[in-house]
Amino acid sequence: MSSHKLCMIPGPIEFHEDVLQAMATPATSHVAPNFIPALGESIELLRQILFTSGQPFIIAGSGTLGWDMTACNLIEAGENVLVCNSGYFGDRFGECLETYGAKVTHLRVPIGESPKLAAVAAALKTKKFKAITITHVDTSTGVLSDIKGIAEVVRKESPETLVVVDGVCSVGSEEIRMDAWGIDVVVTASQKALGAPPGLCVMGVSERAIQVFKNRKTPVANYYANWNRWLPIMNAYEARKPSYFATPAVQNVFALNVSLKQIVAQGIEKRFAVHKEASAKAKKFIHDLGLTLVPTSLEHAANGMSAVYYPEGVTATDLLPKLAAHGIVAAGGLHVDIAPKYFRIGHMGISVTEPERGHLDATLNAVKASLAECGYKGAL
Amino acid sequence: MSSHKLCMIPGPIEFHEDVLQAMATPATSHVAPNFIPALGESIELLRQILFTSGQPFIIAGSGTLGWDMTACNLIEAGENVLVCNSGYFGDRFGECLETYGAKVTHLRVPIGESPKLAAVAAALKTKKFKAITITHVDTSTGVLSDIKGIAEVVRKESPETLVVVDGVCSVGSEEIRMDAWGIDVVVTASQKALGAPPGLCVMGVSERAIQVFKNRKTPVANYYANWNRWLPIMNAYEARKPSYFATPAVQNVFALNVSLKQIVAQGIEKRFAVHKEASAKAKKFIHDLGLTLVPTSLEHAANGMSAVYYPEGVTATDLLPKLAAHGIVAAGGLHVDIAPKYFRIGHMGISVTEPERGHLDATLNAVKASLAECGYKGAL
Repeated sequence: MSSHKLCMIPGPIEFHEDVLQAMATPATSHVAPNFIPALGESIELLRQILFTSGQPFIIAGSGTLGWDMTACNLIEAGENVLVCNSGYFGDRFGECLETYGAKVTHLRVPIGESPKLAAVAAALKTKKFKAITITHVDTSTGVLSDIKGIAEVVRKESPETLVVVDGVCSVGSEEIRMDAWGIDVVVTASQKALGAPPGLCVMGVSERAIQVFKNRKTPVANYYANWNRWLPIMNAYEARKPSYFATPAVQNVFALNVSLKQIVAQGIEKRFAVHKEASAKAKKFIHDLGLTLVPTSLEHAANGMSAVYYPEGVTATDLLPKLAAHGIVAAGGLHVDIAPKYFRIGHMGISVTEPERGHLDATLNAVKASLAECGYKGAL
Repeated sequence: MSSHKLCMIPGPIEFHEDVLQAMATPATSHVAPNFIPALGESIELLRQILFTSGQPFIIAGSGTLGWDMTACNLIEAGENVLVCNSGYFGDRFGECLETYGAKVTHLRVPIGESPKLAAVAAALKTKKFKAITITHVDTSTGVLSDIKGIAEVVRKESPETLVVVDGVCSVGSEEIRMDAWGIDVVVTASQKALGAPPGLCVMGVSERAIQVFKNRKTPVANYYANWNRWLPIMNAYEARKPSYFATPAVQNVFALNVSLKQIVAQGIEKRFAVHKEASAKAKKFIHDLGLTLVPTSLEHAANGMSAVYYPEGVTATDLLPKLAAHGIVAAGGLHVDIAPKYFRIGHMGISVTEPERGHLDATLNAVKASLAECGYKGAL
């Protein structure tokens, strides 16, 4: 443990000791009396965290699987989908939608920008869209999209259009109010601000979207991701009854359950505020060092991560190993157009909700020290 | 820990302490220098365990996902597939194949029987099949299918037909030699005889099947399960290089890696023998108690589990809670036609490779004691 480097990338994030302990739960049947309530309660807790009366799903798989679950269950071949594309993950979600026959229109913004409400409104006037997707936080750029504002625009311009949020890098760190804001689908995963290890695809789906699913005319073109198989499972576990379609990732669910309980116990509103404060602190530190964020404005910069351009003369191969030598694991660039030019740090979960751990300070100080070692004058 | 009941169902199974310890590995990036070799080496170890020069896959998800991976990558719409159906899992695999447009012919056998080679040969003569699927061990019945014999029949009758084995409940406990026996696909999962917690879909695919995949004429109708996305990832990690498509289940992979290393270190041939011995002991104990197995002959009874009819007058609600009171978690019936009439116990992994743990003896003794408590005279 003493050699453990802090995992300060935009997911997986640092986990609470009790979460890790739950990962090491001895072998347990997926229909055991102690497992059923862990999954059942996690479903209930997700409703609170997402502020929805809709249907949560917790499925063994990566967050990427949530794209398939959205596309194969809600979109029928030939239907139009508008993808608000603020980086790498918009491109990929679009590819996934096209795999299931969607006709995808990308509303692309320059790197570092977020989708403008007027552009969304204009795009919605061009044709009838079955759904609009928004990457809440594009992990490749650290850009935060205004899902509340976009959902308002959709309700005004095209109220039948389903509002789908890729919240992989936002659920648990950014404000989301599914029902109040009119959001139909939130896709996320266990390993970001939900504070558990990777391995679970986590979703919230509005009652309206479930009805759209139930009224679809064509069969679902996917077996594992088909909600017809998962709805009875989620309902059974929530009713504290066993059921079987595919063996759940028992230990991962125990771990997620511990983390979700912590999140709700600490207060969800407070969690939003704490992530904003920590992000403001990180961004000020970065600014004071003379560095530039990938997001072009703090108004649309994520609160759970920061994407930062290297200063002149510093590269990924310079900085990241030096950060590692200081005990901090950061991430390189991911957006293909600028990948060698920037790095990313995460500030989510216990690293910010429990500041006494000193994770963020250690990270920021390591950034400064490493830049100085790289010869960057702004850090001297 | 003292309240832990032994998980003696046909998966998840009891895990080694070192496997559980690996599940509690602190937060680690999916491209960290200590994670890359854990996944890369696991791919190499699977080649040894499956006796293949083909391509292993390790993907976040349940074993069920392996059906989708087989169906969506290898079968094109309208192609025929012969499903050797020895229980619940043949029905389900058939449904999955049909989801991707396969025309499925079920070669059904009565409950407790295994597919006959002559029937397979006759079925193969009726039309051209792109693939044949065999449930190696149907977890619902404990029936073991003769995959070596069936593969021989396929090579003789229809050599181009791909041989697909559902090895979810057999890899690690039953003899499988992919290349020597001419098996193209083995689907399995982490939580059975591979000895790790659930959460990973594990596959082995022959070089021939990968070529068939690469030569397919229509696009793959699934995003998350598409081998075009996973082949570069598996190749990168095996070359000890980072790559990204979807975040792997880092802790689960660490745990699987520990278990695979143990399996290879202890010897794969010895593992086959030990599972046979343990199964013979369990079956003799069951027979001596006057109970009847679901498989109609020891010749086609699984070595990693036993499915056993309750004696007259004993039911699931009688026996399973009594077993639990003795500290043993067993499973009820799963095959819909006989579900209330039988129970299942697993004897896989450390519970049989490390007999000094006493798991199997404790289980068998608990079965006897519980049956006696139920008033079953054969146990008195």
